[in-house]
Amino acid sequence: MSEDKPVRPNERVAALRPAADASLRFIGEIRTPWSDRALCPRQGSHDGPDCRLVLDPIWQPALEGLIDYPLIEVLYWLDRSRRDLIVQSPKGDGRIIGTFALRSPVRPNPIGTSIVRLMCIEGREVIVRGMDCLDGTPLLDIKPDRRSFTPKAPPKPGVD
Amino acid sequence: MSEDKPVRPNERVAALRPAADASLRFIGEIRTPWSDRALCPRQGSHDGPDCRLVLDPIWQPALEGLIDYPLIEVLYWLDRSRRDLIVQSPKGDGRIIGTFALRSPVRPNPIGTSIVRLMCIEGREVIVRGMDCLDGTPLLDIKPDRRSFTPKAPPKPGVD
Repeated sequence: MSEDKPVRPNERVAALRPAADASLRFIGEIRTPWSDRALCPRQGSHDGPDCRLVLDPIWQPALEGLIDYPLIEVLYWLDRSRRDLIVQSPKGDGRIIGTFALRSPVRPNPIGTSIVRLMCIEGREVIVRGMDCLDGTPLLDIKPDRRSFTPKAPPKPGVD
Repeated sequence: MSEDKPVRPNERVAALRPAADASLRFIGEIRTPWSDRALCPRQGSHDGPDCRLVLDPIWQPALEGLIDYPLIEVLYWLDRSRRDLIVQSPKGDGRIIGTFALRSPVRPNPIGTSIVRLMCIEGREVIVRGMDCLDGTPLLDIKPDRRSFTPKAPPKPGVD
């Protein structure tokens, strides 16, 4: 994970134990127009270009009902990010900010989250606008945006 | 991951390869008032009880600057959820919905995401309102809510 790369002044690197607390299974990949980090937008726009969430065939039936949601949440794995920075200097000017006060891809568990606009679904491909990741980024999850979702299971006794 | 439990009528289970595409490192744990699933709210409320994100000591300096954000995004690992359901019947009435059209904890990568209200920070503990997970849930990440965050790194040439 490029954890041997040099750091900027005042940035701090953690000596971490192996990442082995839980394991992920990629469910597909994300196709975007950006093949190089320097060309990726820093935050996606709902008027940006169409991007494709391409699911592995086994997961296609899991899309049933998704089209009802105009906004969806997408989780993905920022597989090219180092994971050991505790504080970072995003501007490279020596001023540091804690990793958890940034939305930088450099974090202990590099999971990206985006709220995107659902355009349409074609077979096992979900076409969306608002992504900002590299082409080929591994896909972890898709869910309805929390603001438009109402829990489907029956209420629990004595609980909201 | 309780993948040997019975399923409801019409629910479909995937025969999945081992989860080994990437690995997570828990950064702490979440303390909530709910020790039993039946007592957890289905969606957290910003007026709900105080909950604590307790970081491992190594990550405490990574909180620097977080207090500037009234709303933060929290990612956590729903370690007691099965991961192999493709379609689910949340009401148990035989009507099925795709896993990706639900916010159920039962999903191939059981990562919970919440937007919570930041109350205060005490050392390596972040006190928040709006969680809805079990006490002891492993913590994966904390980041500023996207709506109040402005990227800190310099703009890129030719990119938004």
